[in-house]
Amino acid sequence: MIDMTNGLNSFLFSTPEMTRIFAAQQQLRAMIRFEWALTCALEKQELAASGSGSAVEPLRDAAFIDFDELEREAKNAGNIVIPLIRQLTAAVRTRNERSARAIHLGATSQDVLDTALVLQMRDAMKLMDDSIGRLDTALAKLAHTHRDTLITGRTWLQPGPPTTLGLKIAGTLSALRRNRDRIRAAAERALVLQFGGAVGTLASLGTAGTLVSAELARILDLREPDLPWHTQRDNLAEVVAVLATLTGSLAKFAHDVALLMQAEVGEASEGVADNRGGSSTMPHKRNPVACAAVLASHARMPGLAATMLNSMPQEHERGLGLWQTEWESVPEAFRLASAALAYSIDIAENLDVDAARMQANFDNLLGLTMSESISTALSSKIGRAAAHDLLRIACARAAEERRHLREVLVELPEVTAHLNRELIEQLMHPGAYLGSSRLFIARVVGEPDAQS
Amino acid sequence: MIDMTNGLNSFLFSTPEMTRIFAAQQQLRAMIRFEWALTCALEKQELAASGSGSAVEPLRDAAFIDFDELEREAKNAGNIVIPLIRQLTAAVRTRNERSARAIHLGATSQDVLDTALVLQMRDAMKLMDDSIGRLDTALAKLAHTHRDTLITGRTWLQPGPPTTLGLKIAGTLSALRRNRDRIRAAAERALVLQFGGAVGTLASLGTAGTLVSAELARILDLREPDLPWHTQRDNLAEVVAVLATLTGSLAKFAHDVALLMQAEVGEASEGVADNRGGSSTMPHKRNPVACAAVLASHARMPGLAATMLNSMPQEHERGLGLWQTEWESVPEAFRLASAALAYSIDIAENLDVDAARMQANFDNLLGLTMSESISTALSSKIGRAAAHDLLRIACARAAEERRHLREVLVELPEVTAHLNRELIEQLMHPGAYLGSSRLFIARVVGEPDAQS
Amino acid sequence: MIDMTNGLNSFLFSTPEMTRIFAAQQQLRAMIRFEWALTCALEKQELAASGSGSAVEPLRDAAFIDFDELEREAKNAGNIVIPLIRQLTAAVRTRNERSARAIHLGATSQDVLDTALVLQMRDAMKLMDDSIGRLDTALAKLAHTHRDTLITGRTWLQPGPPTTLGLKIAGTLSALRRNRDRIRAAAERALVLQFGGAVGTLASLGTAGTLVSAELARILDLREPDLPWHTQRDNLAEVVAVLATLTGSLAKFAHDVALLMQAEVGEASEGVADNRGGSSTMPHKRNPVACAAVLASHARMPGLAATMLNSMPQEHERGLGLWQTEWESVPEAFRLASAALAYSIDIAENLDVDAARMQANFDNLLGLTMSESISTALSSKIGRAAAHDLLRIACARAAEERRHLREVLVELPEVTAHLNRELIEQLMHPGAYLGSSRLFIARVVGEPDAQS
Amino acid sequence: MIDMTNGLNSFLFSTPEMTRIFAAQQQLRAMIRFEWALTCALEKQELAASGSGSAVEPLRDAAFIDFDELEREAKNAGNIVIPLIRQLTAAVRTRNERSARAIHLGATSQDVLDTALVLQMRDAMKLMDDSIGRLDTALAKLAHTHRDTLITGRTWLQPGPPTTLGLKIAGTLSALRRNRDRIRAAAERALVLQFGGAVGTLASLGTAGTLVSAELARILDLREPDLPWHTQRDNLAEVVAVLATLTGSLAKFAHDVALLMQAEVGEASEGVADNRGGSSTMPHKRNPVACAAVLASHARMPGLAATMLNSMPQEHERGLGLWQTEWESVPEAFRLASAALAYSIDIAENLDVDAARMQANFDNLLGLTMSESISTALSSKIGRAAAHDLLRIACARAAEERRHLREVLVELPEVTAHLNRELIEQLMHPGAYLGSSRLFIARVVGEPDAQS
Repeated sequence: MIDMTNGLNSFLFSTPEMTRIFAAQQQLRAMIRFEWALTCALEKQELAASGSGSAVEPLRDAAFIDFDELEREAKNAGNIVIPLIRQLTAAVRTRNERSARAIHLGATSQDVLDTALVLQMRDAMKLMDDSIGRLDTALAKLAHTHRDTLITGRTWLQPGPPTTLGLKIAGTLSALRRNRDRIRAAAERALVLQFGGAVGTLASLGTAGTLVSAELARILDLREPDLPWHTQRDNLAEVVAVLATLTGSLAKFAHDVALLMQAEVGEASEGVADNRGGSSTMPHKRNPVACAAVLASHARMPGLAATMLNSMPQEHERGLGLWQTEWESVPEAFRLASAALAYSIDIAENLDVDAARMQANFDNLLGLTMSESISTALSSKIGRAAAHDLLRIACARAAEERRHLREVLVELPEVTAHLNRELIEQLMHPGAYLGSSRLFIARVVGEPDAQS
Repeated sequence: MIDMTNGLNSFLFSTPEMTRIFAAQQQLRAMIRFEWALTCALEKQELAASGSGSAVEPLRDAAFIDFDELEREAKNAGNIVIPLIRQLTAAVRTRNERSARAIHLGATSQDVLDTALVLQMRDAMKLMDDSIGRLDTALAKLAHTHRDTLITGRTWLQPGPPTTLGLKIAGTLSALRRNRDRIRAAAERALVLQFGGAVGTLASLGTAGTLVSAELARILDLREPDLPWHTQRDNLAEVVAVLATLTGSLAKFAHDVALLMQAEVGEASEGVADNRGGSSTMPHKRNPVACAAVLASHARMPGLAATMLNSMPQEHERGLGLWQTEWESVPEAFRLASAALAYSIDIAENLDVDAARMQANFDNLLGLTMSESISTALSSKIGRAAAHDLLRIACARAAEERRHLREVLVELPEVTAHLNRELIEQLMHPGAYLGSSRLFIARVVGEPDAQS
Repeated sequence: MIDMTNGLNSFLFSTPEMTRIFAAQQQLRAMIRFEWALTCALEKQELAASGSGSAVEPLRDAAFIDFDELEREAKNAGNIVIPLIRQLTAAVRTRNERSARAIHLGATSQDVLDTALVLQMRDAMKLMDDSIGRLDTALAKLAHTHRDTLITGRTWLQPGPPTTLGLKIAGTLSALRRNRDRIRAAAERALVLQFGGAVGTLASLGTAGTLVSAELARILDLREPDLPWHTQRDNLAEVVAVLATLTGSLAKFAHDVALLMQAEVGEASEGVADNRGGSSTMPHKRNPVACAAVLASHARMPGLAATMLNSMPQEHERGLGLWQTEWESVPEAFRLASAALAYSIDIAENLDVDAARMQANFDNLLGLTMSESISTALSSKIGRAAAHDLLRIACARAAEERRHLREVLVELPEVTAHLNRELIEQLMHPGAYLGSSRLFIARVVGEPDAQS
Repeated sequence: MIDMTNGLNSFLFSTPEMTRIFAAQQQLRAMIRFEWALTCALEKQELAASGSGSAVEPLRDAAFIDFDELEREAKNAGNIVIPLIRQLTAAVRTRNERSARAIHLGATSQDVLDTALVLQMRDAMKLMDDSIGRLDTALAKLAHTHRDTLITGRTWLQPGPPTTLGLKIAGTLSALRRNRDRIRAAAERALVLQFGGAVGTLASLGTAGTLVSAELARILDLREPDLPWHTQRDNLAEVVAVLATLTGSLAKFAHDVALLMQAEVGEASEGVADNRGGSSTMPHKRNPVACAAVLASHARMPGLAATMLNSMPQEHERGLGLWQTEWESVPEAFRLASAALAYSIDIAENLDVDAARMQANFDNLLGLTMSESISTALSSKIGRAAAHDLLRIACARAAEERRHLREVLVELPEVTAHLNRELIEQLMHPGAYLGSSRLFIARVVGEPDAQS
């Protein structure tokens, strides 16, 4: 749905699935889920009346919530948890007076908000992992298919020796896997229960604190941390940082595709959907809208990562302001990362590759980009430095006179003393100058033969 | 309303008025308003059929929009303007076929989106300016009222010589006025028409381009820029930066109040509303929720300002990704700034000052913080350096022995050679050691006598 | 000189002049200059012995400083000012015992550090303003010279209707002037004296505080602020933000040049210096090193701007940590901005424009980018929407069949019913489709005739 | 040494050891070390003359470098590697003409710069790990020693139920260990060879590419990556992010200490060194300079982390500008992190704890912060919600009348119906209300008995 608060273009910056996970409704349900599990755990320790858990259970859908009242009271209190607990307690009381007594016992607002966030993040991480898997498949296929597709290597946006499209893609795939590892490691650390009570001692539960905590974690299927982490926010900062690192790798991929899609380059482009990438005034346009969405999503992540890092020095047992800073930052990071992933999948699965144009563009460069090949061949005869200088001069002359480098070289006695025309011709063959590219690709996607 | 996308706590990070300005509905209306004004301007140049403007006028409420279709097509096209123009054109056509012909003529999507943003920002700037005025009044009153209210000066969070609450507040007021000037200067630059057509030449209007542009600007009551600014985004980056500078000054104010509100300090606190600042588990709590909201709002602004600055190098005639980066960043900056202002007004208008506690806390410091006064008096006799060293030793002794500095000093012959007990007593009177504070306050809020 | 601390590549990120302004030696001199001026001001108020100013004056070159001792003591004290004052006082004492007594009287460390920074910033701002002037001249000349140099307009990195190189440059020039205005306004606010003593009251000067302050400001030729700004850091945050906005505009310019310099585009390139832009392994390479330096310098500015904004909420009368955060951030921002400016001047003054290639690239696009021209001409006959759809289909066919759009159009009865081949030919002439570009350029650089 | 470029206060923002690692001299040596190892690897593959490695070996101290010339040529070329290779080749040639021929063969500038950075980072990581170990020891000792040291729990900067200093410290220690794990994981990924030649294919080495690469990695004792990572910069972005996460946790620790050190709180303070933390004008001052240095160091890290993340989308086979952005950002991050660690160690090893004041401050709160204890006891009788409301009213009355909560409670029949004075007294004993704090500490630092 078009997001009525964030403006008409918000659809670009999330996926419907991720938006749903962090929507108010799901947050509310996660909070009530925490309270339900807590009640069950208290009941087990005989700190709540028997049957209390069952009394809360049917309320987990949050249907009983009066949103208008919730909002009005939250605004007044500066805290959403207090009115929520009030409504929940009232709803339980109508079912079972005794069960209502222990609602929220032992917990503090931050326990509820943080654990709810963890539960939401767990769902979000699952979505991310699935999408990463799908992108992995698409990239591996591309890298394998194009393991011999020659393309101009470009450094500083200037042409260099040839490489292959497969090697370019393999680089992105290798980064994707490191990012997956980072995200999993961050999830492993971050997906833990928050339960410490007012100041992290669980004092209101007396000696039963860790027993309740362990049971609560078990019910929610979350790991228990060493100790409550109310003001130790490194895990959350890490989560946003690794999402931003992921989108950074995706943005590198999208940036390259957008550059290849320039009309003057024309070597690859986003797959076409009906009418996609059109312009309101230019009938001929086909804009790289998926690339733009990836780049735009990533461009907002470093600011979020910095905000989370800046928000770490939270005071004593509960932060003043910096905790609140996280509340919209973490969901936004997940939304943007999900969008970047979805658009990257779209690009990778539908990439339109023009291998002939890749070859033609390379051939169009007068052999200049094969200069290193000649220079290397000369190195063993006259030394690398002298060979490099010689080729630099030859290239300048070829460029100035718009002649093929080959033609210039065969006129230079310093060259022909060591290399004949045939050898020069051979050294200028780009397909023979791809070095270890196939091996590198195979290290990432496996042996070519195993796949083809 | 609770924002269903951004989570339950979003009410903390905006005001209802500002949320409304940047909501999808208002954005849509601003876009249609642009198209209406353009049609009128075209009509004046006889580039649209007579009566075209009148045909569009009643559609400005956006009631005709089919939101579901708009969203579906926008997602497909990666662009909200194309389906909007389609729906608008269709709606006009049902009224007048000829009028429908010139809809959007001469314009490009970015003209619509940018000018709509400018129109929204104009409303937002007005809100900001009003709020700043209100905060100015409240701070001026506080500074004047407390021009003689003694408070411990604190540097590096350690106590120093006395200052006045009035001087602290005057500092914030002085910064507020500079921020108002910055915001107005930014508005003066940024609130300009965007109208350049496909690549900024207005070519599709032939020789009538600047005539249409001038009329369009006149109708929308916007200044015309030198030339279209499709990829010159300095004005927008400036807008977010000045909002962030404003919130920075407000956060300094809120930070100080929160520190004064610590139980162990207890010199000032947020005014109390019923139940505000409560805790879900600690019945005694009164949290500085307004301070927290200001601090949290500010903490998210530097990331937004950085994102906008990073998004400046947009390619050629229209950016790829970086333009899209702005779309949610600018509204968010306004929302956060409006929240920071609203909460600051709340704090300033209702600040609960405990002047007796301020005096008592100062008196509790054993006279140590008056050491500079004694040191200065001794300087003219024995030199500043020697006096400073002498007092440093005396202070250390007083602190160690928990005696009042006065008592230590009168035992030191190096001191009593120059200052007698009476003079020492006099030099330790904090009310006589406020220097130019009253004069400084008067420079900001006017002469005391003129106000009292 | 190669910066021994910052690494071998630091020469890329500053100019020698700017590096010198913020080097330790100059900072030290600025600090001593403050102390000298303060002594003179105290002398005038008879708070320092007659002749004290003259005793300090010859020490302004900082030659007397024992750097090793200064560093050792600073590390111990966590403060550079205390040992500096000690050494200065000792140096004055050897000349005149009585003059040494009043050194630093009335001031606090932050007064010295902040005012020294202001004095350094004044020199830096002068450098910036001169460089901006020089860049303005170079850009104005380019814009004027190329007011009719046709170039493909590019949106989303895809080709659009034609524009002119002059109009592109005029956009950058227009932004440069706004940035100059911003920087001057920031300088006007920021270049003010800092003098408040321990807690901003000037209490140790008794009733003479503002008299000494006014005289001190007069001697240093600085404006006096309303009141000391020890923890009101909006002005410094603004300085870094406006420098970052400037570099953002320069990065947009450099980004465009780097894109035009791609071999496949080849429309403009950095002027060549001997061996510049070479590669250690590719003899043919000519890298856009100046563009890279501008982009790299800008890319570090948003982080600095964010750091300054984050550092604003400094506690009470002197910040704990956040003040210190500024110390290396402000100089770094000036160094990077000076580098971005210097490299931009280099690019603008030596830009190598290949107008023939610009024309050829445009002609190479099969007339597709003139589709808007045809579409507009048809709009008045069949409506904008129908014309747009018609052209979209024609463009798709032309692209698919690799034929010129003109050839496709003359086969379409819906087109030829309204436009004959001659008119189509005429509408496809890019030179006739530049709209108001000349007028826009003239608004920025003045009338063509006045300059040519 | 005082850093002549970065200003007088730079000593605060690094350690001498870390500064040395990233100084120009060490960078140069690391680069030459790469070239030496490459020559050895080439020799093994018979791509360099026998004895070439030995010819380069003695040059690894970089003593032969002519710095002035290096700088002059680097400025001209925009590249430090080209002139370095020239000087190195010349130096080798004077020893052995044939050995000079293969210098740099197969490599590109980025191979040298990146691998040199990796070698520097390896040394830096070692320093970090050692420091983290030392801090771990100090914190573990503190946590254990103060496992029963009662301190007011503080949330939103307002007092809450009691906790222990040991639990606060254990939280920091737990985060430190997660940060150590993150840093090690980042090092594991990032400390890999860079060797790909011009465009990442190692083409100039023909079929020997991966053999040379493997041997090069072996000599440098670095892991080989899957494939060259010239424009896949996720590992470097991660390094800076994890350093920033570490400093965030340290800043949380320093922030708390600084707040405890406030005169009005006075519960803990930095250990005193002679004259440390003094003021240039206030003789009595003892500033938290180590805390300030930690906070200031951290405050600059998020900007660096964001800059690195923003710099990830580097173009094709070598970035234009964004690669250069990293050059000063990575070393700066290590310098700042090393400073934050060193100052944190200083704080932790010398922390001056005033347990009596902690107790006194808690006792001073009229029992209000024990309200939760009473409320919880009442919950089982009258329900949590009713108990909470009752206590809220009692607390408000106690605060207003400045009486101990106990006195108010015994007057309330709703309370005394369930709790007698003795029980209330007992419930208000803070030492009995520490819940699971000891258990939590033990989970982090081991069983108390095992250590004491």
